[in-house]
Amino acid sequence: MNDDVLASHLQELRRGTVVMASLAILRAPTYGYALLETLADSGFAVDGNTLYPLLRRLEKQGLLTSEWNTEESRPRKFYRSTDEGAALLEVLLGEWTSLHTSIEKLR
Amino acid sequence: MNDDVLASHLQELRRGTVVMASLAILRAPTYGYALLETLADSGFAVDGNTLYPLLRRLEKQGLLTSEWNTEESRPRKFYRSTDEGAALLEVLLGEWTSLHTSIEKLR
Repeated sequence: MNDDVLASHLQELRRGTVVMASLAILRAPTYGYALLETLADSGFAVDGNTLYPLLRRLEKQGLLTSEWNTEESRPRKFYRSTDEGAALLEVLLGEWTSLHTSIEKLR
Repeated sequence: MNDDVLASHLQELRRGTVVMASLAILRAPTYGYALLETLADSGFAVDGNTLYPLLRRLEKQGLLTSEWNTEESRPRKFYRSTDEGAALLEVLLGEWTSLHTSIEKLR
């Protein structure tokens, strides 16, 4: 099978899961690099060039907020889910469960 | 929450699952309208304006073939997965299982 075809279908399947995983992780305030690492450790491979624009989009949509923490020697921007982000997470998790049930029936 | 925001995130999460579900259903030859109905019954809501271009794309990628059946009074185009389509399905199902495990850990 053509590698590009395989890659594009895998990408389509993964798309959307990074938003869900990020909103789940950001229930606790987390800075960007730590979020990247937690995502990778959790099995959601994503690079910064994808993640940072996504975080800006989610912030613009009111799903998360960010704040600079300047108390430590190295200032870091911390992100966390808003109540709206938490509400969206619940909807997405519900949809995921429903899709999973549907897929298991077809398997 | 803004309805458009919700809809776009749900759409992103569902994208990719229709390919997986279609390849699974098309292990048996199926005509377009029957595929639409089986998808809907299985929990993958999709309309013809989305499905038919998707089927053309999958055919162009060698993942399915189509053939007119003219033996009945009403000619119908039947689709079925190729060996490559079946191989992609296995990869996508494996990826889905892996994503599901990852999401359950974060839940």
